[in-house]
Amino acid sequence: MYRVTARDPDTGANAAAPPDAAARAIPERDILPTVTMIGGGQLARMTHQASIALGECLRVLAASATDPAAQVSADVVLGSHDDLDDLRRAATGAVALTFDHEGVPLEHLRVLESEGVAVRPPSAALVFAQDKRAMRVKLSELGLPVPDFADLAGDLGLARGRLVEFGERHGWNIVLKAVRGGYDGRGVWIVDNGPDALAVFDEQFAAGVDLIAEEKVQMRRELSAMIARSPFGQGGAWPVVETVQRRGQCAVVIAPAPDLSAETAERAQEMSLRLASELGVVGVMAMELFETTDGELLVNELAMRPHNSGHWTMDGAVTSQFEQHLRAVLDYPLGDTSPRAEVTVMANILGAPQAPEMSMDERTHHLMARMPDARIHLYGKGERADRKIGHVNIVGKPGEDGAAVRERAERAAHWMSHAEWTDGWDPHS
Amino acid sequence: MYRVTARDPDTGANAAAPPDAAARAIPERDILPTVTMIGGGQLARMTHQASIALGECLRVLAASATDPAAQVSADVVLGSHDDLDDLRRAATGAVALTFDHEGVPLEHLRVLESEGVAVRPPSAALVFAQDKRAMRVKLSELGLPVPDFADLAGDLGLARGRLVEFGERHGWNIVLKAVRGGYDGRGVWIVDNGPDALAVFDEQFAAGVDLIAEEKVQMRRELSAMIARSPFGQGGAWPVVETVQRRGQCAVVIAPAPDLSAETAERAQEMSLRLASELGVVGVMAMELFETTDGELLVNELAMRPHNSGHWTMDGAVTSQFEQHLRAVLDYPLGDTSPRAEVTVMANILGAPQAPEMSMDERTHHLMARMPDARIHLYGKGERADRKIGHVNIVGKPGEDGAAVRERAERAAHWMSHAEWTDGWDPHS
Repeated sequence: MYRVTARDPDTGANAAAPPDAAARAIPERDILPTVTMIGGGQLARMTHQASIALGECLRVLAASATDPAAQVSADVVLGSHDDLDDLRRAATGAVALTFDHEGVPLEHLRVLESEGVAVRPPSAALVFAQDKRAMRVKLSELGLPVPDFADLAGDLGLARGRLVEFGERHGWNIVLKAVRGGYDGRGVWIVDNGPDALAVFDEQFAAGVDLIAEEKVQMRRELSAMIARSPFGQGGAWPVVETVQRRGQCAVVIAPAPDLSAETAERAQEMSLRLASELGVVGVMAMELFETTDGELLVNELAMRPHNSGHWTMDGAVTSQFEQHLRAVLDYPLGDTSPRAEVTVMANILGAPQAPEMSMDERTHHLMARMPDARIHLYGKGERADRKIGHVNIVGKPGEDGAAVRERAERAAHWMSHAEWTDGWDPHS
Repeated sequence: MYRVTARDPDTGANAAAPPDAAARAIPERDILPTVTMIGGGQLARMTHQASIALGECLRVLAASATDPAAQVSADVVLGSHDDLDDLRRAATGAVALTFDHEGVPLEHLRVLESEGVAVRPPSAALVFAQDKRAMRVKLSELGLPVPDFADLAGDLGLARGRLVEFGERHGWNIVLKAVRGGYDGRGVWIVDNGPDALAVFDEQFAAGVDLIAEEKVQMRRELSAMIARSPFGQGGAWPVVETVQRRGQCAVVIAPAPDLSAETAERAQEMSLRLASELGVVGVMAMELFETTDGELLVNELAMRPHNSGHWTMDGAVTSQFEQHLRAVLDYPLGDTSPRAEVTVMANILGAPQAPEMSMDERTHHLMARMPDARIHLYGKGERADRKIGHVNIVGKPGEDGAAVRERAERAAHWMSHAEWTDGWDPHS
């Protein structure tokens, strides 16, 4: 649709231009660049929302017109992230190709790269977000702290032997993880004895699922160090947050993480920025960390895309993770990551086991009546048990106690999920 | 596309339900309501952006697929706001019909209302935003202060006589205004003598343009009191802002208006809220005011839609005017209108007389490099002289001087318009 011309590196007009500026296609006068995001979920939906302010419209490759992002963007390509031709169609005319999930086959991305598509993050970085084993090996090489782990690939007998050796060494306080494809608690098995561990292993081995074993860390809590990095090499870090997991998925995020020493926070930010630089990440990246009971930080997971632990930035930071991701993949200078309040708390709206009688419309009405400052973000998804269907941000008022902000956020999200007030409030009594 | 069912008023579930709840159609479980906005300009574009967070997609009736809102919304009806059938098509299945401009013929809206469409604001209120004469007469009846004015309708000879009488009474310090259709300086003639005034009058009379004459107020500055009102009758007011006009259109907005006494600010808010209630306005409304040199407030204009004087709320208030407009037309409870900083300044990005050589993409790049906290909002419009193509919000940092915030906002917007730094900064020197 848009004519795309090469940037002229000789104008000298753009002093802040990155080294690969000449390679970056920019569009003709008055037409701003198109970014394509692979995946039509809520992350693409919210990235589209951010793209509007930049004068753009996010193009999404979605499986269905009812996907959260496809509901709201004017530029939707229907197709599969597994299909190279669909990926090619989605990339045509776009300045950059990026992702709202880790599921795109690397071999397809390598082909696109060879054809000149600006894949961001590049396949060479993305492999470490797709493959937990490769990530742990790489991080160990780089001297970044990770939980002790064992590779369970290869010959069945040898792998079983490694599992038994590893399990016994850790008193069977271990976790088995699928190397690929796990998220929100899927692909993770927590065990506490040998027979259970071997049963999981045998079953997954038979199903062709590649596993690693990891020590179960004695942890105080989980943290996330979210950063962004541009092709130019600019990096930006938001405050380190605490993430609260329930049933294996993120439920609450407290920004910044309470009672975290400045030194530990800086260490986490530095680890995340350094890793992004070493791996050549482009875009936002969440480094999920365990804070152990003795104050150590261990890297748990990496996500090279907007992430649930960054949703608080939509209302609580000067620049949201979604705008920042666009700025990074477009090789624009990054935005200010300063928090806008002393405390911001995000709570996910998760589908209830049984959807409440009261419609989502009415629940929204009641929440707005009770909490005029609640920032509601709904994804256009149907309700299913534990499905992420939206989130609420509460930006603390000056001087408001962090625990009070958290209580309000969790109360709001629980209301939206269950049509029940956790404080027993009844408007009719 | 969506099945729309009636709200059951007997459930008793919604204690905050408005009196006309039974009349408000709400959609089936998990599907949130559709709002239609007539007009595909930047106001609809930014309303769509806000609708995404509410789980919705704004439907826009746009003249062209390249209109700012049509570029970004997945639900576009192409057609004309002058065509009743197009309006009907756009309204089908929507819970409410609203506007991004005042140009829709009232007779069409009355037909839609008779057919059961929830027109918000209703035609009975909208007439006072469309017709400057009706507005001044009504405000005078309600005891709200307006500049002295004369009706120049009817018989040519009688109207000329009224103009001469009015002009002489005000020493020809008068302004002639088209009763309908003027905006951004169009339809306004500032004169200072009888012959010029009569020449404008005769020419417009011959062209069939209905005029009023208004005294030229000795004013200190212009203010805007932006509020929202829901069908339930809930009202919400943002801080009163100062608007700076250049060449007849809004250039800069300072929120809150500096050096405005709390008492005057409250008076302006009260006037705006009371008028909205008297007129039955639904949605947001900007009441533009003159602050005279002797501290009086006079009502200048009304806009019953999101308004340029409210763009600062996107980054500077807890709830933006765009989300608030949706909440109001959906009859949801209104959001918190508190400012998020001591000072926020909005500056419009106006097309330069000659578009700069440097592309908008590169200008954006440079602004982001220089001001990482600038909140940029681009509308997807081509550059033409004095055309509103975007705006920049600068949210003041704690303790930052208001004049410094304003200087930064104007510097940023001027850069985006002209590719010139007003402070002479040269990255190459």
